[in-house]
Amino acid sequence: MKVAIIGGGAAGMSCASRIKRLRPDWDVKVFEKSPYVSHAPCGIPFYVSGIVDSINNLCSYDIDFFRERRGIDVLTRTEVLEVGDGELHVLRDGRKERFEWDKLLFATGARAAPLNVQCEEIEGVLCVHYIENGEKVKRLVKNCRSIVIVGSGYIGVEMAEAISRLGKNVVLIEKEEYPLPEYDVEIGSVLKERLQKVVNARFSEKVEAIEGKDRVERVVTDKGEYRCDMVISAIGSQPNIELAKQLGVKLGKTGAIAVNSRMQTNIENVYSAGDCAETTNIITGKPDWIPLAVPANKMGYVAGVNISGFEMEFPGALRSQITGFYDLEIGRAGLSEKEAKMHGFETISVTITTKSTARYIPNGDITVKMVSDVDGRVLGVQCIGKGVAKRIYAASSLLYKKAMVEDFFFADLPYFPPESRVWDPLVVCARNLFRKLGIP
Amino acid sequence: MKVAIIGGGAAGMSCASRIKRLRPDWDVKVFEKSPYVSHAPCGIPFYVSGIVDSINNLCSYDIDFFRERRGIDVLTRTEVLEVGDGELHVLRDGRKERFEWDKLLFATGARAAPLNVQCEEIEGVLCVHYIENGEKVKRLVKNCRSIVIVGSGYIGVEMAEAISRLGKNVVLIEKEEYPLPEYDVEIGSVLKERLQKVVNARFSEKVEAIEGKDRVERVVTDKGEYRCDMVISAIGSQPNIELAKQLGVKLGKTGAIAVNSRMQTNIENVYSAGDCAETTNIITGKPDWIPLAVPANKMGYVAGVNISGFEMEFPGALRSQITGFYDLEIGRAGLSEKEAKMHGFETISVTITTKSTARYIPNGDITVKMVSDVDGRVLGVQCIGKGVAKRIYAASSLLYKKAMVEDFFFADLPYFPPESRVWDPLVVCARNLFRKLGIP
Repeated sequence: MKVAIIGGGAAGMSCASRIKRLRPDWDVKVFEKSPYVSHAPCGIPFYVSGIVDSINNLCSYDIDFFRERRGIDVLTRTEVLEVGDGELHVLRDGRKERFEWDKLLFATGARAAPLNVQCEEIEGVLCVHYIENGEKVKRLVKNCRSIVIVGSGYIGVEMAEAISRLGKNVVLIEKEEYPLPEYDVEIGSVLKERLQKVVNARFSEKVEAIEGKDRVERVVTDKGEYRCDMVISAIGSQPNIELAKQLGVKLGKTGAIAVNSRMQTNIENVYSAGDCAETTNIITGKPDWIPLAVPANKMGYVAGVNISGFEMEFPGALRSQITGFYDLEIGRAGLSEKEAKMHGFETISVTITTKSTARYIPNGDITVKMVSDVDGRVLGVQCIGKGVAKRIYAASSLLYKKAMVEDFFFADLPYFPPESRVWDPLVVCARNLFRKLGIP
Repeated sequence: MKVAIIGGGAAGMSCASRIKRLRPDWDVKVFEKSPYVSHAPCGIPFYVSGIVDSINNLCSYDIDFFRERRGIDVLTRTEVLEVGDGELHVLRDGRKERFEWDKLLFATGARAAPLNVQCEEIEGVLCVHYIENGEKVKRLVKNCRSIVIVGSGYIGVEMAEAISRLGKNVVLIEKEEYPLPEYDVEIGSVLKERLQKVVNARFSEKVEAIEGKDRVERVVTDKGEYRCDMVISAIGSQPNIELAKQLGVKLGKTGAIAVNSRMQTNIENVYSAGDCAETTNIITGKPDWIPLAVPANKMGYVAGVNISGFEMEFPGALRSQITGFYDLEIGRAGLSEKEAKMHGFETISVTITTKSTARYIPNGDITVKMVSDVDGRVLGVQCIGKGVAKRIYAASSLLYKKAMVEDFFFADLPYFPPESRVWDPLVVCARNLFRKLGIP
């Protein structure tokens, strides 16, 4: 049996590994355009800031590991040009080659969304979506004085920290009023205040042009212009679906590849997983596009099980995320209140700011927002401050199990004075929601 | 309506506060033997080590807060001598007084278990179960050179750190082979190694006598003797049930006060909550005695709701716990494997040691043990190392919702390189259990 996997990122390698474990004698080929496999762009900010010293460390495993230890036929620097029924054509070392497949996985990932302004392709305008660019940014940034970052999603925020840590002048431009636009304002406003202390953060401002002769010289917005030596574009991403479309694979409403819970597309023996594929949002029960490393890896795993002829279903994801800016940790699981409203939920919410640990061993404050529907089902939790990860771990776990407000109150979250509180902030939020829900 | 609450600890004050919120005009009296209310002995090790500078900081709120802000009639230094039908007799400022009640809560807490050796009452032998003793230990320890701690449960371990931090010579004596005897050996052995580097830790050794003239001079065990200036007894605790028994309140098999999920005892209008009461172990579904601050507070809350004439059920607890020893965090939720076997479960388990964060931003290792039954229901998780709290938060949440191994695999635990991993250690444990359970 011949399996072709297009894309050697998290989902592709996770799927390939699973198949070789369940079907050691199958021929599993991975076609990867870049020189890297199992690449993890999540680490790029830490490479740029110098916390991580080699770009190779950002790949979970090297190619030899997959080739020798796992028996996967990994073809790097190999671009798939065309996919046909049972075959595919690639460009490799400047030569075209043809391969055959019985089962196929699209794990083509996502790419940075374009800014859609003039001069976007000029030297010095970069995204950090690909591991190769991480290296380029690191190399170029040394000789830069001013860097403009466009977009304040988690990548923009993490890059703002990484580059300001290098002592560079950072301008962060966000078209919305608050950073992390997918979060609610109660969280965004805390981050906004902190960002403004460290970088030149411009909100409600829209990039209109990038200008420069041979390389970028300035960014022009609807409110001003900013001289700079580099632009980092971090306004989001979009799924790579062109090859799949070519084969006739159906896309979902989100624009990503539609799959069922076994990661099957509409075409027999063709699967998809990772940032190019849709998944189910566990809160809404509807298809969603959640391009994050954790679901990507697990979707790859599930695809691998099913391609191998066994059965496993992927239950979906929660948009769970943790990020940070200097001393602030930031995280979410489930829906923000504005997302919940967009999905038609009638919401109730509570936001508290409290110590993250025992009052007498303070390590800082945490702000927690909890959103529920009017029947008391919790829809999402967002946090910013100290001790965020443990609360998002608990929230993800409870939301995964479709928890009610009572579950957040009673789940036995333990107390250790340097780490937590007797009444955990999550429990206090639940108790405050009790009042609004009429629970005694 | 007259409500009498015996005991002003976590459960008592939590209950009193709830009643006054739901029934502001009821007469709520709290009878507390010590000068403190809402006292939290969990903080004593941090007071002894100097991290917390005032003993008053260990009380969540002071008495005036409860009296003035919450309208609770708090009577401190007031010992209840006898409880009768609708009345109770107390000793207060050397005088006996009589009070009446329509509804009664036993929140009498627990006390340190006796060592049952000679000279246990001699000067210099202390437990840290009461906040008053925290002060005494702190005062005496200054002039001590050697301190023997008997017992290596979490209190013993935390006191060993607190006192060794003061530069004192600590002998820790444990009758079992490993510290934290309620944990499995995979966790205990990691702690044992670390303990032995810092204190004189003696395992499989039993205290036979305490000796001294006016005050303690040495501890004699079945294997040797240890000169010392102070002994801290930390071999466990037992519920204070004498007053309840006197009234005819039924005890459960654990020896603590039997209550239903509304915290009602066998006697009408008589309730119990906190360390003196039983609760349900969520994993076994059977009555258990879990004397920890988090369930105590919530049991008090639930008792308050029900005493006030509303309805709320306490679902039970998981023995969830976090503790620590220097750089090691230690935690558990649910059952250890030996406890599970004791309860008749046929168990499967896996233990892994791995990095707690992304490989390229290492902050140390974590060892995780996960135990399931043969149908794949997870029975418990134990951790030691770095980043323990977030995993125990997730484990408590999932176990509370009666999670299967698949739930631990698929719960969307987020990845942020300085905080976590793409494949969280909990997920890796679940994946390893898949193999043992025959899940592809």
